[in-house]
Amino acid sequence: MAGAPHLSKGLDDVVVGRSSISWVGGETGDLVYRGFDVRDIVPGVPYESIVHLLLYGEPPSADPSREVGRELGARRSVPPEIERVVDALPTGLPPLDALRTILSALGTGAYGYPPTREQGFDLIARTPVLLARYVRRSRGAAAVAPRADLGHAANYLWMLFGTAPESRHVAALEGYLDLLADHGMNASTFALRVAISTQSDLISAATAALATLKGPVHGGAPSRVSDMLDAIGSPDRAEGWIRERLARKEVLYGFGHRAYKTDDPRGIVLHRIARDVADPHRLALAEAVEQSALDALRKAKPGARLFTNVEYYSAVVLEGVGLPRELFTPTFAVARTAGWTAHALEQSADNRLMRPDVEYVGPPKGRVWPRPLSGH
Amino acid sequence: MAGAPHLSKGLDDVVVGRSSISWVGGETGDLVYRGFDVRDIVPGVPYESIVHLLLYGEPPSADPSREVGRELGARRSVPPEIERVVDALPTGLPPLDALRTILSALGTGAYGYPPTREQGFDLIARTPVLLARYVRRSRGAAAVAPRADLGHAANYLWMLFGTAPESRHVAALEGYLDLLADHGMNASTFALRVAISTQSDLISAATAALATLKGPVHGGAPSRVSDMLDAIGSPDRAEGWIRERLARKEVLYGFGHRAYKTDDPRGIVLHRIARDVADPHRLALAEAVEQSALDALRKAKPGARLFTNVEYYSAVVLEGVGLPRELFTPTFAVARTAGWTAHALEQSADNRLMRPDVEYVGPPKGRVWPRPLSGH
Repeated sequence: MAGAPHLSKGLDDVVVGRSSISWVGGETGDLVYRGFDVRDIVPGVPYESIVHLLLYGEPPSADPSREVGRELGARRSVPPEIERVVDALPTGLPPLDALRTILSALGTGAYGYPPTREQGFDLIARTPVLLARYVRRSRGAAAVAPRADLGHAANYLWMLFGTAPESRHVAALEGYLDLLADHGMNASTFALRVAISTQSDLISAATAALATLKGPVHGGAPSRVSDMLDAIGSPDRAEGWIRERLARKEVLYGFGHRAYKTDDPRGIVLHRIARDVADPHRLALAEAVEQSALDALRKAKPGARLFTNVEYYSAVVLEGVGLPRELFTPTFAVARTAGWTAHALEQSADNRLMRPDVEYVGPPKGRVWPRPLSGH
Repeated sequence: MAGAPHLSKGLDDVVVGRSSISWVGGETGDLVYRGFDVRDIVPGVPYESIVHLLLYGEPPSADPSREVGRELGARRSVPPEIERVVDALPTGLPPLDALRTILSALGTGAYGYPPTREQGFDLIARTPVLLARYVRRSRGAAAVAPRADLGHAANYLWMLFGTAPESRHVAALEGYLDLLADHGMNASTFALRVAISTQSDLISAATAALATLKGPVHGGAPSRVSDMLDAIGSPDRAEGWIRERLARKEVLYGFGHRAYKTDDPRGIVLHRIARDVADPHRLALAEAVEQSALDALRKAKPGARLFTNVEYYSAVVLEGVGLPRELFTPTFAVARTAGWTAHALEQSADNRLMRPDVEYVGPPKGRVWPRPLSGH
């Protein structure tokens, strides 16, 4: 190795390689998928077309992508031996614990290295199918069979609720899935690429990614935004509630992001989408709380560039679509399976084992074990 | 961020932090656990004492560690709702696919952040218990109940085979588990630390680690060493077989390691252990093949520092202990649960999100979607 090693605990000043999938412009508030600004295309582009864009590098020839639509539709029917594992899970697990085991259970030896698009279609298609199956079973409800004739977002709502979803709910969820489909080199995508770098398979790597997304510092807890809005209750209580909360040095959920030093572009679009699906009183509450929070935070920390993050209006949109709070982060994972697949394909195309070093600061070698060793 | 970012695709020249758990001296052929050279203490130190050393930082007051022995023994009895998931897995899965789902299934919502030693004892105790349960079921054999009166290595053999293990087999397996218990910042440990860095839980992080260990570049395939020895068959055929293999530019398994530029210390100790358990003809074959391979490799690549790696005599030892080949890498994971726990505890004690950057090289922003967007 030439030169001194580079010390970086959070790796924030390390570039682990090149990617042509998405660009996060933290200073300018950009999120670009293969050259397309998400603010220009969402809402309006079906999730199938975003999957096409991320996996093939180009937009499909029609909206929604016919190839991807066909692939995802056909793969919604899951082999019964995998359904049996899902049906053996204890009910009432935190959904991300259930989803981690569900993703792992998808891997039954058929997925080798290198990853393929077809494997990715399995992952993308089956994650919401099995999640919905588990959630219904946990609620004591019968499983709803998937429908190959529905789009990805519509089928997810259909399988969760067992009723034909409203088109404005489908469109809003589709916008959410589009916006959360990829986000540069975040921690879960990084974990996935580390797994692929050992020539592990896509399902293993996606399980590693989900295990990493589970941490609240990454996957977050948009449900806490909903809890916060509930606790505040009405716009006129926002300012006082926030003042007290900050005085107790407690966190306000939905503000600040390591990447963005300005408005998160996804949040801007989600705010627009929220107008189509949120209860008007709820939206008014969210807007009042956002304004009070930003005013208070900027007064408390004048230098810090604090903005609303993606979690804030994610919560309002997903509430509006009718999702229960415990499904907010699992639904983030449902969206991200597209980006994970794209990154697995890209990593495997020009692979190198990712194995950093560590500085050993323990006792120097030469310690003597305190008792005679049992020989054999 | 001050200064230009540091570009490193494999992260080999990046130091991600400090650790006092183990030191890998690649140039000198050292592996040190908290100051103890593994060559000085293995074989002879029970696995329970290595677990104590790694998790508490100091040797226990007696061998085997009474605290750890009690904790592991008590935790071998697994809640029936987890056994049900394991029993719902399809039989005949590649054992690492099964083990990934088994590890994930251990996480039933009871494990929050930060990780604790108690959670680690669950992970360490239950991994071999559930693996053995699955393996027996796959073979059509009835499950064998764990025994709290046996040591960790002995109980694993007991649960796999259903008969009291020979003491030389227990001692050899214990030596193997000791030597594989930790190894600095390898790829699976790194994946685990990335997961913990998002404040995910120990079981999630261990699942991410196993998903990463599954890749042959990291977890390897010591079973391929056994297959190679079978294919060669007798010492007199070694030289010719290896010459032909190298002429076809094919890999010889069990040689070369990214970290070590000299003999792998674990390999040296495993070679000694092999003398106690391997069939003498098999050992003679392995030694002849090793010598021929090293001679041929060094002749073929005069500059390269190529040595026998840990996989080579791992295979001979695990064969001697009676393990089927498909259990070689899963048994590596059984050993590594100790190191994973130690690293999870250390990471959480001084945590920071690990999130590197990536250079975007895709199309510049500003592309226009080819069709009018469907409004809503």
